Amino acid sequence: MRILLTGFDPFGGEPINPALEAVKSLDGRTVAGASVSVCELPTARWRSLEVLKGAIAKLDPDIVISIGQAGGRFDITPERVAINVDDYRIKDNDGNQPVDEAIETEGPTAYWSTLPIKAMVSAMKEAGVPASVSNSAGTFVCNHVFYGLMHILAQEGNRRKGGFIHIPYLPEQAARLGGQPSMSLDCIVGGLEAALAAAVTVDEDHKKVGGTIC
Amino acid sequence: MRILLTGFDPFGGEPINPALEAVKSLDGRTVAGASVSVCELPTARWRSLEVLKGAIAKLDPDIVISIGQAGGRFDITPERVAINVDDYRIKDNDGNQPVDEAIETEGPTAYWSTLPIKAMVSAMKEAGVPASVSNSAGTFVCNHVFYGLMHILAQEGNRRKGGFIHIPYLPEQAARLGGQPSMSLDCIVGGLEAALAAAVTVDEDHKKVGGTIC
Amino acid sequence: MRILLTGFDPFGGEPINPALEAVKSLDGRTVAGASVSVCELPTARWRSLEVLKGAIAKLDPDIVISIGQAGGRFDITPERVAINVDDYRIKDNDGNQPVDEAIETEGPTAYWSTLPIKAMVSAMKEAGVPASVSNSAGTFVCNHVFYGLMHILAQEGNRRKGGFIHIPYLPEQAARLGGQPSMSLDCIVGGLEAALAAAVTVDEDHKKVGGTIC
Amino acid sequence: MRILLTGFDPFGGEPINPALEAVKSLDGRTVAGASVSVCELPTARWRSLEVLKGAIAKLDPDIVISIGQAGGRFDITPERVAINVDDYRIKDNDGNQPVDEAIETEGPTAYWSTLPIKAMVSAMKEAGVPASVSNSAGTFVCNHVFYGLMHILAQEGNRRKGGFIHIPYLPEQAARLGGQPSMSLDCIVGGLEAALAAAVTVDEDHKKVGGTIC
Repeated sequence: MRILLTGFDPFGGEPINPALEAVKSLDGRTVAGASVSVCELPTARWRSLEVLKGAIAKLDPDIVISIGQAGGRFDITPERVAINVDDYRIKDNDGNQPVDEAIETEGPTAYWSTLPIKAMVSAMKEAGVPASVSNSAGTFVCNHVFYGLMHILAQEGNRRKGGFIHIPYLPEQAARLGGQPSMSLDCIVGGLEAALAAAVTVDEDHKKVGGTIC
Repeated sequence: MRILLTGFDPFGGEPINPALEAVKSLDGRTVAGASVSVCELPTARWRSLEVLKGAIAKLDPDIVISIGQAGGRFDITPERVAINVDDYRIKDNDGNQPVDEAIETEGPTAYWSTLPIKAMVSAMKEAGVPASVSNSAGTFVCNHVFYGLMHILAQEGNRRKGGFIHIPYLPEQAARLGGQPSMSLDCIVGGLEAALAAAVTVDEDHKKVGGTIC
Repeated sequence: MRILLTGFDPFGGEPINPALEAVKSLDGRTVAGASVSVCELPTARWRSLEVLKGAIAKLDPDIVISIGQAGGRFDITPERVAINVDDYRIKDNDGNQPVDEAIETEGPTAYWSTLPIKAMVSAMKEAGVPASVSNSAGTFVCNHVFYGLMHILAQEGNRRKGGFIHIPYLPEQAARLGGQPSMSLDCIVGGLEAALAAAVTVDEDHKKVGGTIC
Repeated sequence: MRILLTGFDPFGGEPINPALEAVKSLDGRTVAGASVSVCELPTARWRSLEVLKGAIAKLDPDIVISIGQAGGRFDITPERVAINVDDYRIKDNDGNQPVDEAIETEGPTAYWSTLPIKAMVSAMKEAGVPASVSNSAGTFVCNHVFYGLMHILAQEGNRRKGGFIHIPYLPEQAARLGGQPSMSLDCIVGGLEAALAAAVTVDEDHKKVGGTIC
């Protein structure tokens, strides 16, 4: 069993991206019997999905999980749903700033993650890592890649599972930025390992409350 | 032109619901030439949509906007997208607490609001009322009614516009609860009036950034 | 009985200051039998206390309460303690930006408010206005005036009561700034009236928990 | 040179206290040439200071730093000022819940930390650990011990330096509690090491802005 894990290059003025650091730490590892391969994605509207498609074609993975930085969040958040819109508050790394444009003109309004997100959250918490389900991956390149990934997997017939996980800033970023929560790389990597193991081993997601009132 | 405005009855132990108070204040008013009628919805999974359907059938409105309480938010937030899932962190007023169940088994994953949400946010801000686009209406009865409404409107051929707006607690609620932001009824009602006027008069939504990074 | 109420002029790039708007609304009113007079203070390290001294000398009030804007807070917060330090994160309106300098070289480290802050918080909540005790008035001009006021009153023998109340942004400020809680002018003014009435009528403060763990 | 580091036992229903875990990790270490000794304090109004006095008498340290858990904070915060009041929102571990009682009836309203808090914050940030000055240590046992410590040191003639540092929850606590920021033990310990080194080596604190507007 093969897992493809992706992380973005830095954006928004940051010199590092915790997602890239985290996935690099997991490259080549075996988690619950599955081997982890890693691919760096550009934080760029068009190029991100091209690189992702190439990596999927090359590795032929069973599971694809994209990891992204969520500045301001303090826990690891598997995303529930990707929406078919690009509405960028800042420019991406190629200078694109689309407003309310579809990601896939012919695509559905949204795709669910096909990962067992409740089981992944439970596994992370049991490992002592703060985690919760998120109901919005935003409308920037993270959501773009999440939607694009689920569109690719749907067109293939959903024979691979896939989804997206947001992670907090690293402490070194928060020390620089001020006023922001963070999570250490060890903690993030430990959480992702637990989440990957759940993704590999859990076929039907747990029926555990993970919703929000609004 | 007729606008149907709905507000929920109180839930979660609260004696009042700001959404109901706000819509009552707007009942019978004329906004941008459109007359406003109001309907109270039960905060209950099954009954909420029954009542909503009845009110739509009776009034035959051009625009339907549901208003709901968003405890913890400090501005008025038109919702962008409704998702096809019930995942209730607390029980609704009839004791239902579904986990990860579809709202419409045959429905799409999500529906967009068909209201001009960017124009509505701009109109509220120009009126001095804090407002922003929200990308998640949660997974409780608010999202249930939002999704159910958009499903009804879609099945009719989208000849009516519709959507959902979340509003903060009232000051009297926050005074009791502690540690929560709030907005006065006057401010909420003023904001909703500006939003309704935009909904009536704006055909194609403004191309203004309203997205979030995550 | 006479109450002197002060409010600051706008600072930090804001065109208005809610404290000034709120006290102007209360000017000339009678609260619990006490007449309210109002004085505008410059948000300036040295001039603020000169103007305050002049106003106290002129009115000879029984109670002096300074009101200041607390951007980011969502309730009305009577301050418990003023500390003898100026450490300005931004420049004041005269361009001063002292770092870790004493307000009064010979003064004590801190002064308590001599207002019945717990009773004032209770009175505001009973009036439906969100309120809580604050244990830090910051280290900018608000704390400077609070400390300076209590120093003046102490040197006079504490025959007048005095203290400081922080209030949130107005909605029109939050609508412009984005991402900030606010409180309407009516709500602020209603809360301050309830607080003033408690300040006039309560001699010994209520023994109600109002502390924080940290 | 000898440093006495104290940490509290768990309170408020928590099975662990990050302060105790962190100081245990530093016990016996040498930091900037100073040896670190550790003492566990009960989270109890009266006993905490008795144990602290005994530890000071026994070790005769040059520097005394108490560490406490600040649930809800996301960075390490050296405290600027201790205030002479006990106002406990919850009971301490001995069942005490004083409201607005003095810690030392004859003591001053407040004591400054005599640690170089700005230099400590800078040292932590340079080490990649999020940190900032705090202007309130609350009104619970943490502030009680901070005030009591500074009172002891003042009565001795301030020949020892002393102060208080608040630290966030550990990830394993936040994973259980939900909705709370955290910091890993490694990150906390690394930050405290940098802070201790600054406390040992910096005689006159840096003139760096560390204040808040309110």
